Amino acid sequence: MINKLVDKIVKTNAPVVVGLDPMMKYIPEHVQKEAFEQYGETLEGAAEAIWQYNKAIIDNIYDIVPAVKPQIAMYEQFGIEGLKVFKKTVDYCHEKDMVVIGDVKRGDIGSTSEAYAVAHLGKVKVGSKLLTPFDEDFATVNPYLGSDGINPFIKVCNEEDKGIFILVKTSNPSSGEFQDQLIDGKPLYEHVGAKVNEWGSQCMGDTYSNVGAVVGATYPEMGKVLRKVMPKAYILVPGYGAQGGKAEDLTAFFNPDGLGAIVNSSRGIIAAYAKDEYAKFGAKNFGEASRQAALDMIADINGALGK
Amino acid sequence: MINKLVDKIVKTNAPVVVGLDPMMKYIPEHVQKEAFEQYGETLEGAAEAIWQYNKAIIDNIYDIVPAVKPQIAMYEQFGIEGLKVFKKTVDYCHEKDMVVIGDVKRGDIGSTSEAYAVAHLGKVKVGSKLLTPFDEDFATVNPYLGSDGINPFIKVCNEEDKGIFILVKTSNPSSGEFQDQLIDGKPLYEHVGAKVNEWGSQCMGDTYSNVGAVVGATYPEMGKVLRKVMPKAYILVPGYGAQGGKAEDLTAFFNPDGLGAIVNSSRGIIAAYAKDEYAKFGAKNFGEASRQAALDMIADINGALGK
Repeated sequence: MINKLVDKIVKTNAPVVVGLDPMMKYIPEHVQKEAFEQYGETLEGAAEAIWQYNKAIIDNIYDIVPAVKPQIAMYEQFGIEGLKVFKKTVDYCHEKDMVVIGDVKRGDIGSTSEAYAVAHLGKVKVGSKLLTPFDEDFATVNPYLGSDGINPFIKVCNEEDKGIFILVKTSNPSSGEFQDQLIDGKPLYEHVGAKVNEWGSQCMGDTYSNVGAVVGATYPEMGKVLRKVMPKAYILVPGYGAQGGKAEDLTAFFNPDGLGAIVNSSRGIIAAYAKDEYAKFGAKNFGEASRQAALDMIADINGALGK
Repeated sequence: MINKLVDKIVKTNAPVVVGLDPMMKYIPEHVQKEAFEQYGETLEGAAEAIWQYNKAIIDNIYDIVPAVKPQIAMYEQFGIEGLKVFKKTVDYCHEKDMVVIGDVKRGDIGSTSEAYAVAHLGKVKVGSKLLTPFDEDFATVNPYLGSDGINPFIKVCNEEDKGIFILVKTSNPSSGEFQDQLIDGKPLYEHVGAKVNEWGSQCMGDTYSNVGAVVGATYPEMGKVLRKVMPKAYILVPGYGAQGGKAEDLTAFFNPDGLGAIVNSSRGIIAAYAKDEYAKFGAKNFGEASRQAALDMIADINGALGK
């Protein structure tokens, strides 16, 4: 699956993924109103609002952006109805030939980890049938439990040609509480990065591995080190824009081939209409505002990369 | 919620939680057959089999065991239909007045972590309404992202009187890859334990905190240390039975008051009918086999505790 992602990044000339994290406060009032009129102020109503919101954004970006990253927590908080829309969103993005990174941050051990891998990337056996539960292309995974948690994902990735991004150094202010602690003179995130490199060698695509890493845009110096520790890992970079990461900081995450990283923006794109910069579109045309914000982000990053 | 859990443990004299991790291979053939006849070899069929299996086990243990721990991965792998049964199981356990620990191992940052907390322990705002998504009593949480990931859970726990168990030292063989690494002369799990103690002070019940910890039965020496590092944290102890943890090892996890730990068994209870020891019940009476296995486990642990 990493081959497909790299191909799409090259074709669109856009090392960018849009985070589909539809918080209710981002959804324009007219979209909410229409959904609540149809389904009431219910979980179904919230789910319908999310769906109409996502669909308009996807329709406006699918030809210029290679991938989306739906954050499952934002759907899970609306229970079953929310998760139905998560699945509907994944399927719709596939119809539009986008790569889908399920930001699920799952992590467990043995057969439980395998169940998560199957849920998000694989097929589940029911009697004599093999059925598809959620069907993302990539999933984000938490490394705290060690190889017992990662190996079942690698098994499913190899079987199904899928991929994972393992949390290495996250973008948040308190990520250093554990991740930066020194072990034998090196921070924990470097040890995790070294394991990502090792795990990734078991699951290679043509140039890059199907095992990538998450490293926050807010820590470019650490990104520079990690880029070398795991040369074959694609780096998924959250924290650009709203969280403070700047385009010039992003160069550290790329390899000399101009590849190796994909930068995420969530609210900067999906709630662009609410920013002064894109206010001219108006809330009714929030999808068009998202398209313009995505184009601007791509230009910003390519500018910094000298492309 | 920790007060309710402690009360129920004292009343049942059973520091035990049953892991409802319904892998298809554990579900007796007659249960699967009936479900498939009704719904076909579909995700609905699998979900129905899981539901009938869970229900029979719950009916047989609810009066002797204080809590259940459904492992959401085992439901999530059957997609939306699986998650419907997860929710149905949570609700049914509440009808039977059992405490429900959602073994979800979620962990993210900021508003995303809050969305997970809301999904599993809280209420979500939809227009002017507050609605309940999954409604467990406790959730397990991954600490790798630091305080930014934990604080939103603590907020919801305080608002809703719910609780969490934070992964500290997991029961699996490779848990040491990161968790045992020495930082300033102490293993990472001790540093995480110290943070659990700190986080827990913001969310106290009467005697124990609503912030507990997960420490594997397979590491009793580490349990002994962690018991002292976080005296107010209830310890959820997986790894008894199938994973190799023995009753005599468990004493390390308890406080001198005879409280402070709750021991999980999953397949040892729910798939008891398949063990030689309980074969006399027959697959048809798998629920009764589970009850007997639970009674034996309680006696085994109380024996080791000298109760």
